[in-house]
Amino acid sequence: MSSHHIVREKQEPALIIANGEACSPELLGQLLEWSPFIVVLDHAIYRVLDLGIKIDVWMGDFDQPHDVEAIRERQHPLEIINTPDQEKTDLNKAIEFLIERGFPAANIVWATGRRADHAITNITDLVRYKEKIKLVLLDDYSKIFPLTGTFEKWYTAGTPISLIPIGTVDGIETSGLKYNLHKETLTMGHRTGSSNEAETDGMVRVSAQNGDLLIMECWDL
Amino acid sequence: MSSHHIVREKQEPALIIANGEACSPELLGQLLEWSPFIVVLDHAIYRVLDLGIKIDVWMGDFDQPHDVEAIRERQHPLEIINTPDQEKTDLNKAIEFLIERGFPAANIVWATGRRADHAITNITDLVRYKEKIKLVLLDDYSKIFPLTGTFEKWYTAGTPISLIPIGTVDGIETSGLKYNLHKETLTMGHRTGSSNEAETDGMVRVSAQNGDLLIMECWDL
Repeated sequence: MSSHHIVREKQEPALIIANGEACSPELLGQLLEWSPFIVVLDHAIYRVLDLGIKIDVWMGDFDQPHDVEAIRERQHPLEIINTPDQEKTDLNKAIEFLIERGFPAANIVWATGRRADHAITNITDLVRYKEKIKLVLLDDYSKIFPLTGTFEKWYTAGTPISLIPIGTVDGIETSGLKYNLHKETLTMGHRTGSSNEAETDGMVRVSAQNGDLLIMECWDL
Repeated sequence: MSSHHIVREKQEPALIIANGEACSPELLGQLLEWSPFIVVLDHAIYRVLDLGIKIDVWMGDFDQPHDVEAIRERQHPLEIINTPDQEKTDLNKAIEFLIERGFPAANIVWATGRRADHAITNITDLVRYKEKIKLVLLDDYSKIFPLTGTFEKWYTAGTPISLIPIGTVDGIETSGLKYNLHKETLTMGHRTGSSNEAETDGMVRVSAQNGDLLIMECWDL
């Protein structure tokens, strides 16, 4: 049976638009450039519809009423997935949905700002999925991703790079940073690696023996 | 020797104004109502001076040049403390300064928003000082403080309360919440207690056996 439907190859990262503070139109525009598969969470639907963005999936626990027909009129086709599980956040559910659908990677926006409980949970939960999908959380000041294996990337001198342990991380080894770590331990709340930076134009390498480490590229505007 | 200087009793919490996103004028106004002792961090000085707020101490590593005389002209007397220690954040230094000066409590604003590395470090570092000073970090959506001993407070039904473990916290026991915990373990990144709420009008109690727990009262605007 042949089909004229477009089957996206799932090589480009999917995009999750969460329900926090909106990012700049420039950042969103860059992420939309490759027409990613887009999942929108719960109440963000209204703000996203207002931007005229094509949405593939609308997901949430829908704990407050929505006029689903009005939304379908503004956006179709639209897959709507109701996920009432109280043990997981909407972002958890969206990530697990993309893993199930076979996506190897996803970018996440609108997941920070506003309520601190949501923001900190969205950021730190990235480590939970690090072996299953490549996740990058972005906002106007930050690019955040979990360490898996050895991280290697070329940076220009002075680029801010923070190493944020989610809990305790042992055996951290870095090169190329202004303040390198040599088999050291970082513990959230007690000793973290915030506000480090690339020492020179060149490769930065980060690895760890145990634990969950987030790497954050952050900048002031 | 008598003195006509006003000696503040240090019973009201001091106020630290950090260098993140400004809070609403309403929140700042509430915190200023009792004329607290005010510590301003580094580059926030310009935004605070523009608001016409009386400042007691200006503190930071001053890694970029400032026109100190121009600042002194706009605000005097002003105690200026240079703290070049790279191992600590400006907020760490301000908290330790207040502990040294004998303050039993401090509120912290402008410590979230903008760069995620600064925000997450500012929030999670609260636990480091929990036995030494009573800290509350506030922004327009959130009130955050570390658990010490048994927490007890009266809430109205439905008030959102999140329990955010900084690392792993064991033996968590709660009452008065919609989803209570009974000697349970929460682990950041893997199992957290975000988006819980007060079950009824009444007392909420939270205690834990080991680890660092943040309690967050958060709300949508």
